[in-house]
Amino acid sequence: MKQHKTPGVLGGMGPEATIDFMTCLLRLTPADADQDHLRLIIDHNPQVPDRHAAITGKEPSAGPVLAGMAAGLEHAGADFLVMTCNSAHAFQADIEQAISIPFLSMIDMVLQDLKDQHPEVKNVGVMAADGCLEAQLYQRALAAQGRHSIIWNDGERQQFMEAMYRIKSGLHDQPVRDSLLELGEHLRHRGAEVLIAGCTEIPLIIGPEDFTIPLLSSTAILVRHTMDYALGQRSLPPRQA
Amino acid sequence: MKQHKTPGVLGGMGPEATIDFMTCLLRLTPADADQDHLRLIIDHNPQVPDRHAAITGKEPSAGPVLAGMAAGLEHAGADFLVMTCNSAHAFQADIEQAISIPFLSMIDMVLQDLKDQHPEVKNVGVMAADGCLEAQLYQRALAAQGRHSIIWNDGERQQFMEAMYRIKSGLHDQPVRDSLLELGEHLRHRGAEVLIAGCTEIPLIIGPEDFTIPLLSSTAILVRHTMDYALGQRSLPPRQA
Repeated sequence: MKQHKTPGVLGGMGPEATIDFMTCLLRLTPADADQDHLRLIIDHNPQVPDRHAAITGKEPSAGPVLAGMAAGLEHAGADFLVMTCNSAHAFQADIEQAISIPFLSMIDMVLQDLKDQHPEVKNVGVMAADGCLEAQLYQRALAAQGRHSIIWNDGERQQFMEAMYRIKSGLHDQPVRDSLLELGEHLRHRGAEVLIAGCTEIPLIIGPEDFTIPLLSSTAILVRHTMDYALGQRSLPPRQA
Repeated sequence: MKQHKTPGVLGGMGPEATIDFMTCLLRLTPADADQDHLRLIIDHNPQVPDRHAAITGKEPSAGPVLAGMAAGLEHAGADFLVMTCNSAHAFQADIEQAISIPFLSMIDMVLQDLKDQHPEVKNVGVMAADGCLEAQLYQRALAAQGRHSIIWNDGERQQFMEAMYRIKSGLHDQPVRDSLLELGEHLRHRGAEVLIAGCTEIPLIIGPEDFTIPLLSSTAILVRHTMDYALGQRSLPPRQA
């Protein structure tokens, strides 16, 4: 049995994005037998209150539910936690208060890759959902690296949310794909040199091959960093007090 | 938020079969938003000791690891447990000793469907792996219903295990498919009126449409029963003492 750290996954937001995360992790692992694969403990909870409605104050905070899930994952044996939903990172503080193991932010991982791979880029297009943008998760992190965020105007934001809810309802058809491609192109025309797929539904239907500028998939980055932390190729931050 | 019971899943055996279980459950659920889907808590642990080696006494029992996973899932909030590996049901007693919530056997679910859908059938072909056959999981359950099990001869058993390990290593090619189809046909020629796909790797590459006699997929049955128990359409057995 290979010794590694066990990731706990706050998932189910949405369910298909979490399955995509697991599938990508499986494919990335060279394995001849089950035992070569990583153990994951997953709270696959699609019933977490709607993050966008919660962040914009229309519904109760998702923080307490996420905190309860995080504590359960730590109890069940997770060594560190990750979360397969960008917007839900608005509740990171609630999660961290509930646990004594590290929570590793997907937003931070994307920014780390951006720094490593595109140090020269100034203008970054952020393809993200209402809650994620409202909470300024990427905008603040990009500003801290001295970069400029290019985000949706109101019409685009509505178009993007419609596409996300169509994907979440299982529709992966050409119109949804075209809509996302068009939206990405809008950000590029407004100056984006790199795009962040900052919603884990996006890579379910489009990928880097669909654009003439680089597209960073938050799911793919989360998969790679999670594996690195689990295998000890990246060091976990110290346990919280 | 829909009220339902939360299934805990002893998974990762193998990892792809667990992802298949989650995907089938997702597709079976009519949903417009994340919140319409079931919460699952999953210990996706591919590092459980090899069930076949453990059952045949070549390696230590998988029971203690499975019992620890089960206890963790109960702690994390699961209302009942299921397991996505047929052979691992040989350790059901270890699991049940570690928990106070019900463990629902996939073997029992398959036998229930067989009783409901094929009451007249006498001869049942069991496509199952070494450990599952060695532990007589299906053979005993079928005998209790007054049915006869048709299982592999030694050469077929070896051919089947080779196919399973090929699938587990990610190979889903035509030779593996042909091998499984041939093996199923052997059981039919020896009198099987119905086949049980009693290993969760089987439905990853073949399905009922591939045979002229019915094929019961243990994964598909587990998915449907899990949903029924979660939604209260089947009643959970009373909690254990």
